[in-house]
Amino acid sequence: MTAATPPAPTVLPIPRGLRPGDTAALVAPSGPVPEQLRTQAVEAFTAWGLTVEVFDSVTARHPRYRYLAGTDELRAADFQAAWTRPDIAAVIAARGGYGAQRMIDLVDWDAVRAAGPKLFAGSSDITALHAALAHRVGVSTVFATMPASTHFDDTAADSLRAALFDPAGTRTVQGPNARSLVEGRASGPTVGGNLCLLAACAGTPEQQCAAGAVALLEDVGEDLYRLDRLLTQLLRSGWFDGVAGIALGSWTACGDPAAGTVEELIVERLGPLGVPMVWDLGFGHHRGALTVPLGVPAVLDADAASLTVNP
Amino acid sequence: MTAATPPAPTVLPIPRGLRPGDTAALVAPSGPVPEQLRTQAVEAFTAWGLTVEVFDSVTARHPRYRYLAGTDELRAADFQAAWTRPDIAAVIAARGGYGAQRMIDLVDWDAVRAAGPKLFAGSSDITALHAALAHRVGVSTVFATMPASTHFDDTAADSLRAALFDPAGTRTVQGPNARSLVEGRASGPTVGGNLCLLAACAGTPEQQCAAGAVALLEDVGEDLYRLDRLLTQLLRSGWFDGVAGIALGSWTACGDPAAGTVEELIVERLGPLGVPMVWDLGFGHHRGALTVPLGVPAVLDADAASLTVNP
Repeated sequence: MTAATPPAPTVLPIPRGLRPGDTAALVAPSGPVPEQLRTQAVEAFTAWGLTVEVFDSVTARHPRYRYLAGTDELRAADFQAAWTRPDIAAVIAARGGYGAQRMIDLVDWDAVRAAGPKLFAGSSDITALHAALAHRVGVSTVFATMPASTHFDDTAADSLRAALFDPAGTRTVQGPNARSLVEGRASGPTVGGNLCLLAACAGTPEQQCAAGAVALLEDVGEDLYRLDRLLTQLLRSGWFDGVAGIALGSWTACGDPAAGTVEELIVERLGPLGVPMVWDLGFGHHRGALTVPLGVPAVLDADAASLTVNP
Repeated sequence: MTAATPPAPTVLPIPRGLRPGDTAALVAPSGPVPEQLRTQAVEAFTAWGLTVEVFDSVTARHPRYRYLAGTDELRAADFQAAWTRPDIAAVIAARGGYGAQRMIDLVDWDAVRAAGPKLFAGSSDITALHAALAHRVGVSTVFATMPASTHFDDTAADSLRAALFDPAGTRTVQGPNARSLVEGRASGPTVGGNLCLLAACAGTPEQQCAAGAVALLEDVGEDLYRLDRLLTQLLRSGWFDGVAGIALGSWTACGDPAAGTVEELIVERLGPLGVPMVWDLGFGHHRGALTVPLGVPAVLDADAASLTVNP
C-alpha cells in the first residue's frame, strides 16, 4: 500500500483546555525517559495544579533496543489507554528520540477517534503522532518542548502551559532571534514539525502536505547534506506545493560551517517557493523553545517575524 | 504531486556489453571526486582497453556546498550528454555521496529515453538514478563499487568489469561471509540498493517497490535507530509488500553494539516477511564489494547463500 496524495491541511477542532485538578497522562511513544527528567516533568505539571499519571512506558526500557522506551506494544497501549480514558484530559509525550512510527500501527485508531478530541503535546519524533492524529482523528495538537526534555526551562514551560490551559486563545509566537527571510503575510492552518520525521513519513499513512498552510520546520543533529536531502525529498514529493508560508525553527547541532550554512541551504532550496518565510521563529530543540499548536488557524507575518495562532 | 503506487519491478532490457576500444564516460552526479581517486578510475578503465572521457562534473566543485560535484545543472548536463552521445557506450558514476536527487529533475528524460539503452553503473547515492532509469527509461543498470571509491580494489574491479563486458552473462554473486538468515529460494528481477536512498525516494517519482522482486539492501554510516527508521518507513510505505526475497549487503560503520546489532534489527523488522533472506551477500560499502545488476532476472538461493543473475 502506498499513501495516496494527502489532503490539504485544514483547521481542526481544538480540545477543551486544562483546568487545575485535571489529570494529564505522561506517556513515552518513542525513546526512554531518564529518571531525573521524568521527575522534572511530573513536578512541572503538578505545579500547574494537575494530577499527573505516569504511564508504564515512561519507566520502561525495550528489552533489546536501548533507544526505545519499552516494547512497541506497551508504547502503543499506553498512548491508547491514556487517550481513551475519560478521566484524562491531556496526553503528553514525555520526550522524543525515535520510535513513534513503530507503534502507530498498533494503536486502535477507531477507539481513539471514538473517544473524541483531547489535548496532545509533543515534538521531534512525535511529529509522526501529530500527523497520525490529524489524519485519523482530526484534532489539533500541540507542538511543544516536552517536559522530560533538557530544553524544558521556564520559558518553554510557560509557553506549553498557555497552550494547554487556553488552547483556543490568540497568541503570538516570536522568539528573540526571529527575523524575516522572505517578506509578506500568509494565513492558513499550521502544519509540519520536525523535518526529518516529515520526510520519514513520506510514502506512509502519515505523509502530509502543506498546501494552503503555514508550515513549521526544525531539526536537530543533521549534517548539512542530510538537511539538503530531507528538503529535496519533501520538495520532490510535493510536500511544499501550494504552501502559504514557512516558519523555521531552530537547527540545533545541524550543518557544518565548512560545507555551507543551514540558512543558505534553506534560502536556496525554499526561497524559490516565493512565500513568506521567517527564520528562527522560536520553536525547536533549544532551551526556551516556544509551543506552536498544529491544525489551528494562524497568520505568519514575515515582515514582523511573528506567527499569531487563533487570530 | 505525490508518487502514485509504484509499479512492480520487471525484468528490463540489458544494454550491449562493452568491447575493448569502446568509450566510457566518467560522470559525477553526486559528490566531488578527489583527484587521486579520479586517476584510479581512469587507469582501471584504460587497463580494460577502454577510452575514458572524464566529464567536467568529475573535476568540478559546487561554488557553495562542498558535498556536491559542481552545480546541479552541470551534473545533470554531464549525465545527459554522456547518455545521449552515440559514441559513448557506458556511463559510469565516479562516486556517490549526495546529490543525485538534486539533478534528476534537470535531466531531459525524453532525450535520454530516445537515445536508447546504455550501460550505467554506480551505487550508494546513485540508487536514486538507478530508480530514475528503471522508471523513466526502462533499462537494467549495474549496482557496483564505483571506480573512484576507496573500496575499488581488484576484486571489486573484476566484478564490475564482468558486469560491463558481459552484462547478460550468468553469474553468481557470493562474498566470503554470505550466509542464510531465512532459508528458501526466490526468483524475480533485482531491485533496490542503498537503504537510505530508497527511503529518501519515498513520495518522489523514484519511489519504488519490491513486489515480486529480489530486493538488495545495504547502507553505510547510519546509527541503529536510523536504520530502524529507514526500514520502518519502507515497511510502512509498502516497499516490501510481496517481495520475493531479500539479499543484504554490508552495513559499514552502521549500528552501535550497545544499542543492539544490525543483524538483530533486520531479523526483527524483515524476518516476519517470511521470505528467503541472505546476510552479507557481498555487495555494499567495503573493499571487494561485488557488482549486482538491477532489473535483471535472478535467483536468490538462501540455502546456498548465493544470488545468481541472468540464470
